Amino acid sequence: MIKVGIVGATGYTGVELLRLLAGHPQARVTVITSRGEQGKPVADLYPNLRGIVDLTFSDPDLDTLGACDVVFFATPHGVAQSMVADILALGVKVIDLSADFRIRDADLWEQWYGQPHSARGLISQAVYGLPEFNRKDIKSASLIACPGCYPTSVQLGFLPLIEAGCIDLEDLIANSASGVSGAGRQASVANLHTEVSDSFKAYAVSGHRHHPEIVQGLGDMASGKSVGLTFVPHLLPINRGIHTTLYANLTDLSVDVQALFEERYKDEPFVDVLPAGRYPETRSVRGSNYCRIAVQRPQGGKKVVVLVVEDNLTKGASGQGIQCMNIMFGFPESAGLTAAALLP
Amino acid sequence: MIKVGIVGATGYTGVELLRLLAGHPQARVTVITSRGEQGKPVADLYPNLRGIVDLTFSDPDLDTLGACDVVFFATPHGVAQSMVADILALGVKVIDLSADFRIRDADLWEQWYGQPHSARGLISQAVYGLPEFNRKDIKSASLIACPGCYPTSVQLGFLPLIEAGCIDLEDLIANSASGVSGAGRQASVANLHTEVSDSFKAYAVSGHRHHPEIVQGLGDMASGKSVGLTFVPHLLPINRGIHTTLYANLTDLSVDVQALFEERYKDEPFVDVLPAGRYPETRSVRGSNYCRIAVQRPQGGKKVVVLVVEDNLTKGASGQGIQCMNIMFGFPESAGLTAAALLP
Amino acid sequence: MIKVGIVGATGYTGVELLRLLAGHPQARVTVITSRGEQGKPVADLYPNLRGIVDLTFSDPDLDTLGACDVVFFATPHGVAQSMVADILALGVKVIDLSADFRIRDADLWEQWYGQPHSARGLISQAVYGLPEFNRKDIKSASLIACPGCYPTSVQLGFLPLIEAGCIDLEDLIANSASGVSGAGRQASVANLHTEVSDSFKAYAVSGHRHHPEIVQGLGDMASGKSVGLTFVPHLLPINRGIHTTLYANLTDLSVDVQALFEERYKDEPFVDVLPAGRYPETRSVRGSNYCRIAVQRPQGGKKVVVLVVEDNLTKGASGQGIQCMNIMFGFPESAGLTAAALLP
Amino acid sequence: MIKVGIVGATGYTGVELLRLLAGHPQARVTVITSRGEQGKPVADLYPNLRGIVDLTFSDPDLDTLGACDVVFFATPHGVAQSMVADILALGVKVIDLSADFRIRDADLWEQWYGQPHSARGLISQAVYGLPEFNRKDIKSASLIACPGCYPTSVQLGFLPLIEAGCIDLEDLIANSASGVSGAGRQASVANLHTEVSDSFKAYAVSGHRHHPEIVQGLGDMASGKSVGLTFVPHLLPINRGIHTTLYANLTDLSVDVQALFEERYKDEPFVDVLPAGRYPETRSVRGSNYCRIAVQRPQGGKKVVVLVVEDNLTKGASGQGIQCMNIMFGFPESAGLTAAALLP
Repeated sequence: MIKVGIVGATGYTGVELLRLLAGHPQARVTVITSRGEQGKPVADLYPNLRGIVDLTFSDPDLDTLGACDVVFFATPHGVAQSMVADILALGVKVIDLSADFRIRDADLWEQWYGQPHSARGLISQAVYGLPEFNRKDIKSASLIACPGCYPTSVQLGFLPLIEAGCIDLEDLIANSASGVSGAGRQASVANLHTEVSDSFKAYAVSGHRHHPEIVQGLGDMASGKSVGLTFVPHLLPINRGIHTTLYANLTDLSVDVQALFEERYKDEPFVDVLPAGRYPETRSVRGSNYCRIAVQRPQGGKKVVVLVVEDNLTKGASGQGIQCMNIMFGFPESAGLTAAALLP
Repeated sequence: MIKVGIVGATGYTGVELLRLLAGHPQARVTVITSRGEQGKPVADLYPNLRGIVDLTFSDPDLDTLGACDVVFFATPHGVAQSMVADILALGVKVIDLSADFRIRDADLWEQWYGQPHSARGLISQAVYGLPEFNRKDIKSASLIACPGCYPTSVQLGFLPLIEAGCIDLEDLIANSASGVSGAGRQASVANLHTEVSDSFKAYAVSGHRHHPEIVQGLGDMASGKSVGLTFVPHLLPINRGIHTTLYANLTDLSVDVQALFEERYKDEPFVDVLPAGRYPETRSVRGSNYCRIAVQRPQGGKKVVVLVVEDNLTKGASGQGIQCMNIMFGFPESAGLTAAALLP
Repeated sequence: MIKVGIVGATGYTGVELLRLLAGHPQARVTVITSRGEQGKPVADLYPNLRGIVDLTFSDPDLDTLGACDVVFFATPHGVAQSMVADILALGVKVIDLSADFRIRDADLWEQWYGQPHSARGLISQAVYGLPEFNRKDIKSASLIACPGCYPTSVQLGFLPLIEAGCIDLEDLIANSASGVSGAGRQASVANLHTEVSDSFKAYAVSGHRHHPEIVQGLGDMASGKSVGLTFVPHLLPINRGIHTTLYANLTDLSVDVQALFEERYKDEPFVDVLPAGRYPETRSVRGSNYCRIAVQRPQGGKKVVVLVVEDNLTKGASGQGIQCMNIMFGFPESAGLTAAALLP
Repeated sequence: MIKVGIVGATGYTGVELLRLLAGHPQARVTVITSRGEQGKPVADLYPNLRGIVDLTFSDPDLDTLGACDVVFFATPHGVAQSMVADILALGVKVIDLSADFRIRDADLWEQWYGQPHSARGLISQAVYGLPEFNRKDIKSASLIACPGCYPTSVQLGFLPLIEAGCIDLEDLIANSASGVSGAGRQASVANLHTEVSDSFKAYAVSGHRHHPEIVQGLGDMASGKSVGLTFVPHLLPINRGIHTTLYANLTDLSVDVQALFEERYKDEPFVDVLPAGRYPETRSVRGSNYCRIAVQRPQGGKKVVVLVVEDNLTKGASGQGIQCMNIMFGFPESAGLTAAALLP
């Protein structure tokens, strides 16, 4: 039984870690920190945890975190980079759910996140935590940069096509839609029920922070070839779930895309390729770590359409972090992540 | 065509006034004020008004408001009381959608609203704007205190029973549920989509500001007799709509409650008594000024159950204010308020 | 590891059984039946079970069901009564989630359910599966009649007050609101998204089938004293969750209701009495077997208000059935039921 | 005041016609027909119309319909084609909201709709009712084929670009999302609240009946040039609203797309081009006849992204039909269609 610390557990990825880890057979959360809520039982903030999680928020300090085997950062960007070096120095592994170590080019990171990066030296140590592409490196990593929610869905959807070299990399489109929990738990007018519910809209078409992360990831899959991506995120009036619709032009019309996806993901515990003709629904992964994918060629033409669903808080964040933890510590990769999605 | 001013039009009752008045045949909004949004076109804040309302927010000042025939206050409590005297002095009528003048006992008001009342002298001038009970006084009023959203539904539901003297006034129950727009358009965690949607809860059982207002109103209907009311509000995961379920014990079992309600409201333009056996739905009044009511005696017993629906922003606020305006200015009472509810 | 059969697993209580039992450490579903879907993999109908449940629907037959240790009926009323005698005769225990054996008075059952009861002789054998009241009898039962969803919430809310003898039994009110999954998975216009969402209404005020069941249960708690109940159900635009608001008049004003509830439920694994002043939300039990309760006396008066939330498919149906199974087979009562609710 | 008949007014486009026409200054609905609901007051079916529409459903017959100036068909496909010839013969104009006369190639129609077309001779008479492209022909038409909901949004979004000849017509993508009312008011499991709410999915990627209609319309705009379109519809958990995200490659990088759209639509009463950088939301057109459009070139590249919102029941069906009616009868084009969208 390893000891787990969580920094910044007041947000939705934090409570999702608590929910999932409460059922993990080989890990136990021993410390959760929050500067703002110090001394408050976590169940006061999240009533679903009453009777299940007895922990109280504490101030983040190195002594307590240093007693853990692994520390998760479920913080806004900018926090992890200020603490990670000290924690690693104590021999504690770190899984960062925030954006701090996702982008290898520090200048690019600073440009998109609008602040200096205070731990440039650590960036090259960080392993991008997408098990389906990076499992081997994750196994030996000390610092994991968990992928963003949108990037997970886009990369898993394009991965088989890029590895097979059968699409035009210069004209990729990712049309994504996310539930509101992706925006976090900060007071805001824009995310009020009255502003979001019963409506749908695109946003950030001119540029979203996940764009450079996705382009980097797709480039890695393409062995460094240049990638041209149009990414349009939308806001869904639901709490959990991302649905990504991908469009690409096949350069090789002879490829059997259904077989390609089934083969590529046949051993993956959390990627489910649907039978031909089925459509994935976000509710089919609500609260679970599964990513479900369907692939189609409308009218048998050169356009390939890939449909991907995941829960943005689970496979898109906390569940994927736990999957990485399982790999790092040699646990069964599905440990603590086997529950079925909640439906209806 | 009268000139209408709106103070504080950035909130949901403000935009509802604009939406409704845009179609009013005898009134035109000429000034809308907001300290925070001065200079901004209202359509930038409320995209549904693009192409329909061309006004720009201005700072509230007496010269501009003084040129109006009537000024609505769509402000949080505490604002109207600081401005109304000056506006009335200019011969301009005032319709206050806030709570400032609803409660005649200023000490009681101060106790519930937690601040001194700065216009105690005006309270006795204010007429409570519930047309179904107070139409005559509204006609000659200069200052209208528009009823709260919950109080409108509770009072309209009990009115026929209280006037008929056939229920035990000491044991009244109002079990209400409101859409989220009742909480306004302020940044808050509690009203985020992620906190409100897909859930339901009671709140303020120990005491809600609408409790003293309702008790005062029911007491007036009972000619000053004492009234005992248990009021439990709940929060619905919808934007608009209040559903109130009332419980009372009949003291006269011979009364035909269906006939009583039909007779009492037969000439009311905005109170619709449903045929026996039908149930009102909040969606049947979404965006309209109707209040729909059904009355039942389960198993023919002494308990009478009244079901009331209204749109909290329309009959529960802005629509009722316009209905009062129509009465005050001698317009047809339904002017500008005849649109059907949006369904589905 | 016991073998579990499920008759009628195509509905929502059926899939909920499958979801919950997939994680049960001591029970394994070996057969699921459906006349309409015979031969179809359950994961084709419920995509959340892909990769988790490999079973295929089969025709219900005694040989297969007879090889089970326990059979759940997740069928509409009328089905279990036609099959239970044969299954019991094979020494297999039965947990009926339907209404067939809930009401001891067969004439009353026939009156409310509008059809003859074909297994009158078995009714007296059935034990009403409310562990918090009936745990001892459940332990030795062969046939469990699982309580209805509304009745569970109403009975758990009134139980401490009735046992303490401190309320007027003749004037009880249960104002309940349920999510749409309570209506099942049948094609209907009334339960379309377009008819239900963004709205709220009461229904069945003149009489609901759960009324006689609740009255019987409350009467049992009151040692057979007569009970007068007004029950008004409402339909919430959410999928899962029941919120019940109970009203009663205290006959003993000296009682400390908060302490009464805390004491009564202190050893119950699935009843959570909230601290004074907190309000239960349906989302805090979404997908979990918890029932959370708060109790208030507004303004310290004689009216006691009890607020109860449960997930209608879990504690209100399938979860409660599994809780009964755990008791019957001597498993830890929480086995397979410890997951936290999904929030947000 | 013209007399209007509606055939098939029990569905959502029918009730939307009634809601909108109730406020039309120059048209009055005199007959509504329904074979199934004959003799029933329409307000019994649609409670939002109580007190506003007094009509009763009647059997469709030529005498009654022949007394109208115009007859709307709000029926499933296949109905209008069997009745239109007789109605036109009586000198009554027809506006068909169904798909019967949208596709000029009758063989193609039969292939997609899976039944013979029984009024092939009338197809060439029908004018496609998209005022922004076809206003002149609509003015003199006797038979209008109202565009489908998706096709309206896609065509209005591509129109300026196609007319300007600045995009590659062979690689157009329309990624659309529609509210559930688009599926109509038939009993079905697929459209239950429990199946649709809190989820999102694509459907009909392999082929949707609106695909040939859109391709025909875009081809007309391109003066008959060949058009290659990938169309992926999605189902939104809201009742009203379509959001379409269009992707195309510019062939002329010098074009100012913002100016192009503003210029093209500057005189259109119901197409609102948003200022650069704004995003249209479906709620901003809820219940209104507006179509709001934004256009972007991410990172100033060759990909142009167009965002279009409309209410599928209003601009996507009934409102557009009334707009056509206004043009046909020489009324102001906005008559009866000026109400602002309902927000929040």
